[in-house]
Amino acid sequence: MSASTSPLAPAGFPELPDVGGVRLGAHAAGLRYQKRADLFLALLDEGTTVAGVFTRSLCPSAPVDWCRRILHRGSARAVVCNSGNANAFTGRAGDTSARLTAETIAEVHGIDPDDVYLTSTGVIGETLPDDALVTGLRAMQAGEADWNAAADAIRTTDTFAKGSSATADFGGGVAATVVGIAKGSGMIAPDMATMLGFVFTDAAVSAEVLQGILSPSATASYNRITVDSDTSTSDTVLLFATGALGNDPIVSLDDPRAVALAGAVDAVNLELAHQIVRDGEGATKFVTVRVTGAETEAAASRIALSIGNSPLVKTALAAEDANWGRIVMAVGKAGERADRDALRIHIGDELVTEGGVVADGYSEARANVFLAEDEVTITVDVGVGDAEATIWTCDLTHGYIEINAGYRS
Amino acid sequence: MSASTSPLAPAGFPELPDVGGVRLGAHAAGLRYQKRADLFLALLDEGTTVAGVFTRSLCPSAPVDWCRRILHRGSARAVVCNSGNANAFTGRAGDTSARLTAETIAEVHGIDPDDVYLTSTGVIGETLPDDALVTGLRAMQAGEADWNAAADAIRTTDTFAKGSSATADFGGGVAATVVGIAKGSGMIAPDMATMLGFVFTDAAVSAEVLQGILSPSATASYNRITVDSDTSTSDTVLLFATGALGNDPIVSLDDPRAVALAGAVDAVNLELAHQIVRDGEGATKFVTVRVTGAETEAAASRIALSIGNSPLVKTALAAEDANWGRIVMAVGKAGERADRDALRIHIGDELVTEGGVVADGYSEARANVFLAEDEVTITVDVGVGDAEATIWTCDLTHGYIEINAGYRS
Repeated sequence: MSASTSPLAPAGFPELPDVGGVRLGAHAAGLRYQKRADLFLALLDEGTTVAGVFTRSLCPSAPVDWCRRILHRGSARAVVCNSGNANAFTGRAGDTSARLTAETIAEVHGIDPDDVYLTSTGVIGETLPDDALVTGLRAMQAGEADWNAAADAIRTTDTFAKGSSATADFGGGVAATVVGIAKGSGMIAPDMATMLGFVFTDAAVSAEVLQGILSPSATASYNRITVDSDTSTSDTVLLFATGALGNDPIVSLDDPRAVALAGAVDAVNLELAHQIVRDGEGATKFVTVRVTGAETEAAASRIALSIGNSPLVKTALAAEDANWGRIVMAVGKAGERADRDALRIHIGDELVTEGGVVADGYSEARANVFLAEDEVTITVDVGVGDAEATIWTCDLTHGYIEINAGYRS
Repeated sequence: MSASTSPLAPAGFPELPDVGGVRLGAHAAGLRYQKRADLFLALLDEGTTVAGVFTRSLCPSAPVDWCRRILHRGSARAVVCNSGNANAFTGRAGDTSARLTAETIAEVHGIDPDDVYLTSTGVIGETLPDDALVTGLRAMQAGEADWNAAADAIRTTDTFAKGSSATADFGGGVAATVVGIAKGSGMIAPDMATMLGFVFTDAAVSAEVLQGILSPSATASYNRITVDSDTSTSDTVLLFATGALGNDPIVSLDDPRAVALAGAVDAVNLELAHQIVRDGEGATKFVTVRVTGAETEAAASRIALSIGNSPLVKTALAAEDANWGRIVMAVGKAGERADRDALRIHIGDELVTEGGVVADGYSEARANVFLAEDEVTITVDVGVGDAEATIWTCDLTHGYIEINAGYRS
């Protein structure tokens, strides 16, 4: 765990409202970390629906396998997380730990194990201590919603707890609440950053509509951030709708309430994704990379990620060095069509290149003013079309090496 | 430039033989670096044939454009390199500098400008000082083959000069000599590492056969190494055959002499590629990643590169930490078929995982003995086929950040 809070962290954990139908718990089971909560539980009222997106890793963790197996049911009564051990690449023992977790929670709270969603985050390849795990799960209480304590319990190398909320106006004075918490700071790359996200709403929504809201929302948020291009075995985002609001259930994506809810879910997911980048291991800059003028949105996204993942671009950002040649390099290696002689690169508001050369009147001094900020925007027009995409990343510093060359010790 | 020599460097620059028909020159033109040679010239006898492979970057440098334009001729009389400035993303000014370089060398040495091969390496996006360049080119002499001086002149962040030689037995007491020099230590990734390689032989070989030897040789060497996953705008490998040996020209790849020559060229290219990894920016470990049991060689190579490019794997290697879970992660994110429950991972000779879990009798202490060595081998059998591939990489250390957060200053 990192000692000091990221310099890019928000001022504090946000005030988050209660979500009807959600009770929260956290508990220090001592599974790996000492003197802090390492178990998280959300208990959900009967009738809660669920949607999920998961890592595309071909070596997923046991909890990911578990969630994928039960997701088709569309119902949920609980979600559990343990931090410090990913329960990934743990074979049959890992499957047993997962099943034990679900069965223990189900027994204690009188629910169906197949309504219990499981997540684990931490070291890969170590078996969970099942006895301590079960003891901890049995001891964990769920009550009023202390979101900060919940967000703390799911941290690993995170230096701050992550949370966000938004409201969806359903008209007639009715508004749904959306609250999310997340964890993640390394092993972050598209196709699910190494991260867990739990988002809750009190709206009544069918599981199908919920999935229709979550999937594109994850694509536009968690899948557009990158810290180190690594993708974890455990990435999971779950969206739960308890129905405690008492609205007529939303059963169509065309329902204006679905649109309102999607807007709120998008806002929460994007804010959580940005917080993860702000906690990027060793990060000192929050970097927005916007690519315009591409052939397709997918091409724009790939070019933006090629820039955002380049160690040479990221070290130049750390040094506040306007070494824009490395941006040209990253565009060139992306493998997507770009017109070298039409590339327009901006650092902040400073136009750097135009017509295949450094721009007339380009001032490195002015570019450096933008680079000296905590938040840097790089804009690249690749001159071949109308599509665009934005991704978010951070710089690459000694801090990243520090954290990752010592994670297990 | 880095101050100290890589700890993985060979004991010294190798003794390299003369190659008939090749004269070498180096010169300090002060284009960027002071008090060291920054221009390199090889003059080649009439009748020299040439083959080339180039970066797949879509933003190639002016010299790459130049070489691609003339390569179809198959003939060469000179190759020039300037270090410190890549002449990339320099627009029409860059094209002018390239043409001026070729024309100056052609005029001084009485050859055709379209037989002059050009390479540049260094910072992207800065225009070359044409007057100083031309003055330097005119002043540069070519004479006896001082390979070490030549290899020194093409260095940028390289901490040691790179050279290698081999012999091809043509039978009947006739043997061709193959000598190569190279540069590269960062911006190294497949599809041409950020590197330049110049390989010379005294054999007489048609340009077609030469290309047929070079292309697969580059795939199996330079395109199987990675330092930081970044690909440069300038990567170029050129293979020249002067014919000074006086053999009947080799005009078919089926000729046994072509096979012998290919073996020698392969050996030189692989050794140069390994030297580049040994000079990986900040490297303290030379790492071999061998993937077996894949569906195809391309799949094996992609999985191996996913491991070799992972910042989390590379920082664990730097820490000599047997955090093999990160290897599982990298296999999982490669996007190629692998059987999680059949993965067999070795660190050195130590079997780490088997059957989807940590292996019976696995000893982290024994794994750590292998990780403490300068040279580490990771072997992963992915359990779905018979294909395999090997790539070479290095660890990721504070030294990489140090070098790349200060390259231009």
